[in-house]
Amino acid sequence: MNTSVIRYILGNVLKLEGFLLLLPCIVAGAYQEKSGIYFLIVALISIAIGFVFSARKPKDFTMYLKEGCVATSLSWMILSIFGCLPFYLSGEIPSFTDALFETISGFTTTGASILPEVESLSYCMNFWRCFTHWIGGMGVLVFLLAIIPLSGGSNINLMRAESPGPSVGKLVPKLKHTARLLYIIYFGLTLLEMILLLFGKMSLYDSICTALGTAGTGGFGIKNDSMGSYSVQIQWIVTVFMILFGVNFNAYYLLFFGHIKEAFKVEEVKHYFGIILAAVVVISINIAHMCTSAFDAITKAAFQVGSIITTTGFSTTDFDKWPEFSKGILVLLMFIGACAGSTGGGIKVSRVVIAVKTIGKELNGYIHPKSVKKISFEHKPVDHDVIRSINVYFMAYIAIFVVSMMFITIENYDFTTSFTAVAATFNNIGPGLSLVGPTCNFGFFNNFSKYVLMFDMLAGRLELFPLLILFHPSIWKDLFIQADKRVKGIERRN
Amino acid sequence: MNTSVIRYILGNVLKLEGFLLLLPCIVAGAYQEKSGIYFLIVALISIAIGFVFSARKPKDFTMYLKEGCVATSLSWMILSIFGCLPFYLSGEIPSFTDALFETISGFTTTGASILPEVESLSYCMNFWRCFTHWIGGMGVLVFLLAIIPLSGGSNINLMRAESPGPSVGKLVPKLKHTARLLYIIYFGLTLLEMILLLFGKMSLYDSICTALGTAGTGGFGIKNDSMGSYSVQIQWIVTVFMILFGVNFNAYYLLFFGHIKEAFKVEEVKHYFGIILAAVVVISINIAHMCTSAFDAITKAAFQVGSIITTTGFSTTDFDKWPEFSKGILVLLMFIGACAGSTGGGIKVSRVVIAVKTIGKELNGYIHPKSVKKISFEHKPVDHDVIRSINVYFMAYIAIFVVSMMFITIENYDFTTSFTAVAATFNNIGPGLSLVGPTCNFGFFNNFSKYVLMFDMLAGRLELFPLLILFHPSIWKDLFIQADKRVKGIERRN
Repeated sequence: MNTSVIRYILGNVLKLEGFLLLLPCIVAGAYQEKSGIYFLIVALISIAIGFVFSARKPKDFTMYLKEGCVATSLSWMILSIFGCLPFYLSGEIPSFTDALFETISGFTTTGASILPEVESLSYCMNFWRCFTHWIGGMGVLVFLLAIIPLSGGSNINLMRAESPGPSVGKLVPKLKHTARLLYIIYFGLTLLEMILLLFGKMSLYDSICTALGTAGTGGFGIKNDSMGSYSVQIQWIVTVFMILFGVNFNAYYLLFFGHIKEAFKVEEVKHYFGIILAAVVVISINIAHMCTSAFDAITKAAFQVGSIITTTGFSTTDFDKWPEFSKGILVLLMFIGACAGSTGGGIKVSRVVIAVKTIGKELNGYIHPKSVKKISFEHKPVDHDVIRSINVYFMAYIAIFVVSMMFITIENYDFTTSFTAVAATFNNIGPGLSLVGPTCNFGFFNNFSKYVLMFDMLAGRLELFPLLILFHPSIWKDLFIQADKRVKGIERRN
Repeated sequence: MNTSVIRYILGNVLKLEGFLLLLPCIVAGAYQEKSGIYFLIVALISIAIGFVFSARKPKDFTMYLKEGCVATSLSWMILSIFGCLPFYLSGEIPSFTDALFETISGFTTTGASILPEVESLSYCMNFWRCFTHWIGGMGVLVFLLAIIPLSGGSNINLMRAESPGPSVGKLVPKLKHTARLLYIIYFGLTLLEMILLLFGKMSLYDSICTALGTAGTGGFGIKNDSMGSYSVQIQWIVTVFMILFGVNFNAYYLLFFGHIKEAFKVEEVKHYFGIILAAVVVISINIAHMCTSAFDAITKAAFQVGSIITTTGFSTTDFDKWPEFSKGILVLLMFIGACAGSTGGGIKVSRVVIAVKTIGKELNGYIHPKSVKKISFEHKPVDHDVIRSINVYFMAYIAIFVVSMMFITIENYDFTTSFTAVAATFNNIGPGLSLVGPTCNFGFFNNFSKYVLMFDMLAGRLELFPLLILFHPSIWKDLFIQADKRVKGIERRN
């Protein structure tokens, strides 16, 4: 295994995080908060270590899928460990486990919080919470690819490991330009939402934090009641943008570069909007008797559907009190998730659509055994390898889900709590039902359960295998053998 | 489509059911119950209609998979409709929907009952309930294959549609002899259990009913508290036999014909016993504080684990009151199910093992992308087609589960009830948790939900696709076009 390139990437990730940590320092400066000093300290440490790690350029930049996955998983872990230090050192989140949980929840755009109430946090801390969503949404390695020169064509394996969805589509031939384009679209949409929120009479600070949280489909609120106390106008702006950030970014690329017809033909996006529309209509009817008017019902249903399918996790109402049918639909949307190539989590619409088509094909095979028609998606036949990878993804998904749930049930909370706690973290949503409902938090779990849920959040964000690979003995053998060789090499030189 | 052969098979199924319905008549005679008359009436009607249907032998016995599936699904439906008539006509189950639910639950070896208490039922009715388990356990078409002469080699498609598991293994080259062998092993084991139960001081009637219910891994009790009031000795006999009937019958074939070494090498069976052992140990420890002694804990854990993994559904204790962790394990076992080629339901151990191996292979693929090692199961490489069919099975399984659950949540019962009601019927177990726990019944659901659950029971028993195929428009087109042709043919002749 090419460990030098992994080391080099980790170093760059740390440097990047160091610079990003300076932003909450600015917020602290604006609000004259002393806790800003912790961001500065961690930023400096992180930059320093980053420089040490990345000082020596690797001779060989070749990265196979293995290196891509290991680099990505380790990057996300290091990112989270350093990112949680300001919370912990400042004492605003006194437990290290809780601080780490909150940070992983941030970077993975889950939005599950251990805080019973967020309003007592300082401004700079709350800003950092929302900012982690934004960084994690599009991916920190994609960001890295956009700015640092990684020679060699094998960087695609880095992007493959970090980007959500069954296959990675490059927008333009050069990966660097693809990464830049993605971030330009991402930044532009975030800015647009922020401006609209300002027009909706939200304060500047709230607008920035909300826009960052929406863009990353994260869901950390900065108010104790999430989005419930904001005006209906603001709720609709957030609804629309949550849904927009769940769209496959390929569609935006096509749209912005004049391929308008093609943009509206993207099959995944059409299914995505179809599912949203159906869910909103059905839930609106189902909750109508609990609302003041039809418009109120649609507002609440649309917000919650948008929030859950995109795995954002904001809430305007306590949907745990909704009828079981509506809750059932929300749980289903939790699993479906947003489009591939968006900032949202979950299984992804494309995987679900291809899975359903596979069932249809099998049924046809019973009737016309000699038919060899291939499944088509996005107007072209689906490669056999993609179908296989989707199938295995489902298997691994179920396996991780079941094992996690077993671990959580040891604490003896009710079935709904255990089930939706795993569902909400694994799919990077945030709130579940029952004890982890929208008005509750994850603070009551013991540390063991919290580490299980942290694993789920990372596994969900990195789409299982890049993280699972770290548990394969051969990876550890590789890492240790090479570390061993290096030590022996140094000894020999002395 | 070859509709003549389907008609012929349906006719024979009805004749067979008619003769089987005479058995409860004998029980009614022994206990001098008047309700026995209804069995006689239905038996005669069923035999009469059966003769009309099967009077004309089809010219062509060719059956493709399509015909096999349609014949099997329709057979099971007709079987259930005629089988429920004695309950309904006698008024012992006054609602037709309830009677049908109880009968489908019987034939599919589910054992979910709508009866609040079973002891008020007459002896012949209770015998028929348990007997349906026995008929459904090994399969009525397999029985038919053993006794009626269906010429042509395409009968394997009939067995393929009815037998549980990802692939059908013929024990001996001739299908007819395979079917006979299966029934001989099945009958022998049932008889052995009955004799042992008699030695355990159970009454003859109870022994017969319990042995029939265990053999089919059904689970209808004849006492209100299922098996709770029987002695520990009897409970252990039932435990052992439940587990034995969940074993792949191939292993018994090998065992009885002297291939003892091979019998103990059957991979699925080894995994099956491994899972049972692990679950019993963990649950025993987890429930120890609720039991009078370690032996009591092991007795209860072993009974419940055996009952749930084999999808029998008997109970000796209200496991809904167990800690969430133990309940979580039971829910997991509900999904895993018994071995393929046994009388048990669920996803089947072999499918689960192959799925887990698929994940391992994928992980290896990330590390050694060029490796082409195939997955092996039962000491030989697994065919690509089998893996594909297992994958599609999982997809379809999830899809049906989700849609059923959506329909059930309309009734607004809690999440655990809706989830485990579907899980318990779809996997052909019987009891679930919460409102459908072991001390409760399914009577409180409305008719719509009951039909959804009936569909789930049939889909679970026939392993999805043979039933799903009935909903394919082309099947209906085929059936109607041929009916149309026949009518026109008759008109022309006149």
